[in-house]
Amino acid sequence: MREITLSDVDDIATGAAVLGTGGGGDPHIGRLLAGAALRAYGTVSMVPLDEVPPDATVMPVAMMGAPTVMVEKVPSVEQAAQAAVALAKYLGRELTHIACAEAGGVNSLIPVVAAAQLGLPLVDADGMGRAFPEIQMVLPTLYGIRATPMSIADEKGNHGILDTVDNRWAERLARTATVEMGCSAMISTYAMTGTQARDSLVPGTLSLCGELGALVREARAEHSDPVDAIVTRLGGRRLFSGKVVDVSRRTSTGFAVGTAELAGMDGYVGNLLLRFQNEHLVAEVDGTVVASVPDLICVLDRETGKAITTEALRFGQRVAVISAPSDPRWHTPAGLELAGPRYFGYDHEPVRG
Amino acid sequence: MREITLSDVDDIATGAAVLGTGGGGDPHIGRLLAGAALRAYGTVSMVPLDEVPPDATVMPVAMMGAPTVMVEKVPSVEQAAQAAVALAKYLGRELTHIACAEAGGVNSLIPVVAAAQLGLPLVDADGMGRAFPEIQMVLPTLYGIRATPMSIADEKGNHGILDTVDNRWAERLARTATVEMGCSAMISTYAMTGTQARDSLVPGTLSLCGELGALVREARAEHSDPVDAIVTRLGGRRLFSGKVVDVSRRTSTGFAVGTAELAGMDGYVGNLLLRFQNEHLVAEVDGTVVASVPDLICVLDRETGKAITTEALRFGQRVAVISAPSDPRWHTPAGLELAGPRYFGYDHEPVRG
Repeated sequence: MREITLSDVDDIATGAAVLGTGGGGDPHIGRLLAGAALRAYGTVSMVPLDEVPPDATVMPVAMMGAPTVMVEKVPSVEQAAQAAVALAKYLGRELTHIACAEAGGVNSLIPVVAAAQLGLPLVDADGMGRAFPEIQMVLPTLYGIRATPMSIADEKGNHGILDTVDNRWAERLARTATVEMGCSAMISTYAMTGTQARDSLVPGTLSLCGELGALVREARAEHSDPVDAIVTRLGGRRLFSGKVVDVSRRTSTGFAVGTAELAGMDGYVGNLLLRFQNEHLVAEVDGTVVASVPDLICVLDRETGKAITTEALRFGQRVAVISAPSDPRWHTPAGLELAGPRYFGYDHEPVRG
Repeated sequence: MREITLSDVDDIATGAAVLGTGGGGDPHIGRLLAGAALRAYGTVSMVPLDEVPPDATVMPVAMMGAPTVMVEKVPSVEQAAQAAVALAKYLGRELTHIACAEAGGVNSLIPVVAAAQLGLPLVDADGMGRAFPEIQMVLPTLYGIRATPMSIADEKGNHGILDTVDNRWAERLARTATVEMGCSAMISTYAMTGTQARDSLVPGTLSLCGELGALVREARAEHSDPVDAIVTRLGGRRLFSGKVVDVSRRTSTGFAVGTAELAGMDGYVGNLLLRFQNEHLVAEVDGTVVASVPDLICVLDRETGKAITTEALRFGQRVAVISAPSDPRWHTPAGLELAGPRYFGYDHEPVRG
């Protein structure tokens, strides 16, 4: 895919929600925002990661906040571009490329919106190869790239620039600002050169999102199993099929935190418990961990193959739970320190799904 | 006073703590910081408000946070100048004058520190003629001068720029950042022109601080009553003398909030109750309000005349409570809306002390 047109938006949103592992925003919101932007400003050209010029100035943009709030407080189309422009102005650099910080139903589409508005190319990549809940949890952190200076803006017109001593402090200060701004905010962070982008981002993420979305759409048309198609494409496996029998979720310090319990069906026995903080972190079957961060744990509608975000989990849904390998850099010691199970308070080694 | 030398620091800190009405920081910290800066960088020249050139760029600097924390987490001398410089850089304007946002044991001295470091003149004025707990509570707000863009920095090196839709939002976002930064932060806010400064600031505040401090010092030397000297100079009155019999104080959302109760002595009967949020807001004798914001309520040591900040109130202290008139602009409808009793949740008209 070398450009993104209106007809690509549906597939990208569908696929991005799979890689969002429960977080990254509701794909319906992502579709609405990107659709409006592409209708208003035309198509967006997409640049493969290895073709980004070394001296490019690449600015990722994203929504920060609790998914539970982001579905009710829809960001305005203007905000996305403003965040990137404010950061470029502060840095005194000319913005050349927009990038994607994380894969997700909203966060893969916000960069499309910004790129369309600004008439700038979009890098076919992202910072994680999935979604994670905190700002510092991107591969660029492993390469010493700083999250700040970063810009942050709300829908009311309040905005700011943060410059912190490390990426954990960027998370802390941006999170409290986000909570005060009403639990969601637009950010531009990890401004980087083309060389840094080529080193540190995950290549091809937006294309992969589009591909996953197309697989789901085609499987439905052909009456084949969309879940199988996704599992095969991602090199993952099906962990469980079941019915949602319990969801416990609260919005805490700007995150959607909770658990969901599924009762086995289709030959799967016992119960599967999902533990999440915006994204699914751990899956347990009858008390045994069967998959965990940094690998992907995705909850898909058993019939349609569409990803169900953590804020959309409801009693009675029939779902398939799959796992898929993360970018291998997340399994290095430094990667695990940043986003492994122990960081999130789980006292066990990562379990590959 | 046309310049501030090391020998002026004690008096200014003493007097500023009186006008701080319980807040504005511990004068001991202010003395230490200003003393270190003046020893390192030499004297500071002070400009009367009506001599500030109309096209000057005036930047007030201050500490924001709970006084209970500010006494334990002493700011570094470098921070004060950094906040002003960061804001000037963001605005793209050349900084010509440092100003004082509020009177207080720390907040009258922080501008001295910044002016010494930067070799810039200090305006003999402040934004309130006293101390108030929230950012928007300065006379410049009444003149439509914006609190933002403002800079904020902590002692670890984290810093940021906020730009908000109004001064109340500046307070909200800066307060949450301050809390996350450890309940105290250095800010530069209300950048203004010389003309704006001349319109909106309270003239002569730093000179008045020095004068009050000298009165206290001289009364002690002459064995006369320092409390009387302060009351006379401020055109105020003595409300009460008593012993502190109860103090209830907590650090809540970045403020020191509480009450103190005094049992009458020296002929004063009944009990006086002080209600404070960083600063003293209301004084009641046996349930009747005898003084309230926006006028000044100051607690002074009955013997030495030295102001006692709200965080330094202790059981057993023998104190005098005085009131003094605020700048008359605080009694206009707009001034009362900003910092009158009802803003703080007290359902009564302001009571002049």
